[in-house]
Amino acid sequence: MNSKFDEKLKEFKEYLSKLEYLESTIALLSWDSMVNAPRGGIGYRSEMIGYLSGEAYRISTSDKMKGFIEYFSECQDSDYIVKAMAEEAKRNYDRTKKIPENEYKEYTIASSNSTAAWEEAKEKGDFNIFKPHLEKIVNYKRKFVEYLGYKENKYDTLLDEYEPGITTKKLDEVFSEVRDAIVDLLNKIKKSGYTPNTDFFTKQFPKEDQKEFSEFVLKKMKYDFEQRGRIDESIHPFTINFGNKDVRITTHYYENDFRSALFSCIHEGGHAIYEQNITDTLKGTMLGKGASMGIHESQSRFYENIIGKTKEFWSYFYPEALKRFPQFEGITLDEFYKGINFVERSLIRTEADELTYSLHIIIRYEIEKELINGNIEVEDLPDIWNKKYNEYLGIDPKNDEEGVLQDMHWSDGSFGYFPSYALGNLYGAQFLNKMEKDLPHLYEEIKKGNLLHIHEWLKENIHKYGAVYKPADLIKKVTDEELKAKYFIEYLNDKYTEIYNL
Amino acid sequence: MNSKFDEKLKEFKEYLSKLEYLESTIALLSWDSMVNAPRGGIGYRSEMIGYLSGEAYRISTSDKMKGFIEYFSECQDSDYIVKAMAEEAKRNYDRTKKIPENEYKEYTIASSNSTAAWEEAKEKGDFNIFKPHLEKIVNYKRKFVEYLGYKENKYDTLLDEYEPGITTKKLDEVFSEVRDAIVDLLNKIKKSGYTPNTDFFTKQFPKEDQKEFSEFVLKKMKYDFEQRGRIDESIHPFTINFGNKDVRITTHYYENDFRSALFSCIHEGGHAIYEQNITDTLKGTMLGKGASMGIHESQSRFYENIIGKTKEFWSYFYPEALKRFPQFEGITLDEFYKGINFVERSLIRTEADELTYSLHIIIRYEIEKELINGNIEVEDLPDIWNKKYNEYLGIDPKNDEEGVLQDMHWSDGSFGYFPSYALGNLYGAQFLNKMEKDLPHLYEEIKKGNLLHIHEWLKENIHKYGAVYKPADLIKKVTDEELKAKYFIEYLNDKYTEIYNL
Repeated sequence: MNSKFDEKLKEFKEYLSKLEYLESTIALLSWDSMVNAPRGGIGYRSEMIGYLSGEAYRISTSDKMKGFIEYFSECQDSDYIVKAMAEEAKRNYDRTKKIPENEYKEYTIASSNSTAAWEEAKEKGDFNIFKPHLEKIVNYKRKFVEYLGYKENKYDTLLDEYEPGITTKKLDEVFSEVRDAIVDLLNKIKKSGYTPNTDFFTKQFPKEDQKEFSEFVLKKMKYDFEQRGRIDESIHPFTINFGNKDVRITTHYYENDFRSALFSCIHEGGHAIYEQNITDTLKGTMLGKGASMGIHESQSRFYENIIGKTKEFWSYFYPEALKRFPQFEGITLDEFYKGINFVERSLIRTEADELTYSLHIIIRYEIEKELINGNIEVEDLPDIWNKKYNEYLGIDPKNDEEGVLQDMHWSDGSFGYFPSYALGNLYGAQFLNKMEKDLPHLYEEIKKGNLLHIHEWLKENIHKYGAVYKPADLIKKVTDEELKAKYFIEYLNDKYTEIYNL
Repeated sequence: MNSKFDEKLKEFKEYLSKLEYLESTIALLSWDSMVNAPRGGIGYRSEMIGYLSGEAYRISTSDKMKGFIEYFSECQDSDYIVKAMAEEAKRNYDRTKKIPENEYKEYTIASSNSTAAWEEAKEKGDFNIFKPHLEKIVNYKRKFVEYLGYKENKYDTLLDEYEPGITTKKLDEVFSEVRDAIVDLLNKIKKSGYTPNTDFFTKQFPKEDQKEFSEFVLKKMKYDFEQRGRIDESIHPFTINFGNKDVRITTHYYENDFRSALFSCIHEGGHAIYEQNITDTLKGTMLGKGASMGIHESQSRFYENIIGKTKEFWSYFYPEALKRFPQFEGITLDEFYKGINFVERSLIRTEADELTYSLHIIIRYEIEKELINGNIEVEDLPDIWNKKYNEYLGIDPKNDEEGVLQDMHWSDGSFGYFPSYALGNLYGAQFLNKMEKDLPHLYEEIKKGNLLHIHEWLKENIHKYGAVYKPADLIKKVTDEELKAKYFIEYLNDKYTEIYNL
């Protein structure tokens, strides 16, 4: 280290801090729009966000930023964190600088129109309303890939935005294994003829009681909402943060379903704990955030499914639920446990169970990949969609509303985003395998309602590093192996063989 | 008009819009800090606000701003609104540019330390803890007056920040009349020997019931909280806005007092209605805000006291209250009305009634004026304070906590702010006099619970203009006279003569 380097690093961090302040500010304005803002204020709010986004763009793409990137990428004194800072700044710089500003502006307008068209199309169940808009969006995305460049596969460039470093080649490998394993399990489950009872989940559960119980569970998970978090309500649940000391989640209560708000709270709690546990020293580096969308989902799904749907977890929490909810009188722990792990071949991704969920994602992945590479076109989508649902899940959408039109993601050009959800499952199972080795008393502790060991393990192995490591490096560092499908497949086989007595 | 002028005006407005976006953003961040933010996030929040304030400072004091100010101040094509824009920008520019940046930074640190010292001093009832800090603050303020310049009286320069154009000379004139009139009335009330009953206000009033009733009253006032507002809770009630389409108020419910939250809602509702009714076309001019602190207070106090404490108002609302609050059973409208207008010589400004409130303010005004002009020093304050309370209100603080240490304002250097509160009362009574002439059926309508005429009159005469007119010009425009004490004095005499049968 030398003083010139230190001085320049201090300047770099101060410069990146400005971006962090702006991003946190935009996040708070968005949170407020979704949770609080009166409708009349939304127009002006968009202008405010637009101005602040413009300022963030200006900083991200400035010559000053370019200077910092060049200096710290090549400087011998840069350690791995400083290198990661420069790399992250470069990803940001390239993404915004390589696409001509005018075209990007046209794209954002097209994207906003496309989302409106998608809403209308979904409502009317008419893909043709959406088609011309989606074609525009796909064309923009294909063009952007050319601007940004690609190596082996054009789709890789889009994946990189959400999952830095992952490739189509890797996804093809792991997703095809997972797909076959799930299809196989689904067939066995069908043959088993067994259907767990779930009626008791859809009695009346007053909002205030659900709220109290969700908070009880979140406290046990050590989501800190006394000092550094809070829970609000919004149409769709989400997690948002402004630094690591103000990390908020939202949920949506349905009084006729016990599961929805509870598992969404556990899920968002997983995201929130991740952000709360990122080490303070990453402030001002732009690395004080999750390593990727997929790693983030691995944390939320770890709590929601891998821990939150075990018998051990409910050994502790079911008696607590019984104290609060006489609605469950007469239902045994075993019935309850099988109920929350009920598997059903269904059409809607957001309502899917833990087992079938990844299939919904893999269908979307396979379609996106071909679409971006020009092997299929927008007009082919409804047919391909329906064929894949028939092939993998054995069910047929009655119309496009419950088929190709169900998700918003394509309407605003978020191609490459879907795989993160399924990657989260794979990462999670591989982390679990290592955690079980590191924590021999894991399940005994869970049975006692002690989730602190899990919290600490995730913090020490994953959370504290923020985005210092790329996903592939992180999983290697934590588990000593690269990403493999087998852990998730084994996990699923073990779990459902036991529940369905296969 | 010519195209060069139009082009340049468009640029000026775009530039001012940036300032408006930043100010609205800072306001939202502050609102969130006071209403929602977890404690852990406050440190980072201050950094965010600090960054955004710095950006606002940069724009306010830029050469570009200076160029606009010079061009539009002198341009023959500028109409009165453009002139007002340039003038407002100049006030802002001068205030920030004339004080050396370093000294201002030192001052803000001293001010933050001083506030902390004030808190401690107040808690311990020890003025000496606060004294050295307050001396620093006063010295800074005296120096700033020299930097900013002054004409007749040094204190005018500080007044100008809150009440553009008002002078010590004018305040001396109106405040001394008001002071004598109130002291006189207080003596008569004492002699009358009559004390209204207020016991029934301090029964138990559940928060939810108070909330519902406050919202009922606010709806009748036509505060739009469906589309453009909302009500939250905070330690101290306040109004804040981000543009004119998102104007929020807060309150604080005390279950053992019917009056506190209700009248604070009516008060804040008055502020909020003002902001909601500023015309849309002032967006991008920096004039889309109240004309001054005093005019703003005139609106809140108009609803809180001048309308909200009349017998006509409660002729409609008391039966509504009775429907909701059996706590008032057996209490007549007359008793209720006299109860809310109960006068008491008390020590604490924030708890004072409508009549004595202005005396509390005038005491502070008289002290501030002498202090800034160097006629008295910080060490003299406790004595002078106590003497004035004895002379005007006939009561003696037992200690400095209920004396000179009660308000926060001096600790952060807000000298010149207090007069606004009393000015609000004077403006309000003068507006009322004109309103009564314009609306001959005013009180009949109030009796029916119809407050729409008031809403419309205030909107058309005051609200819609925002800060286009200076307070003195506005009151002249609305009432055809300059500010006079006599309307407020007559209003007080009439009201209390009737209630106390003087």
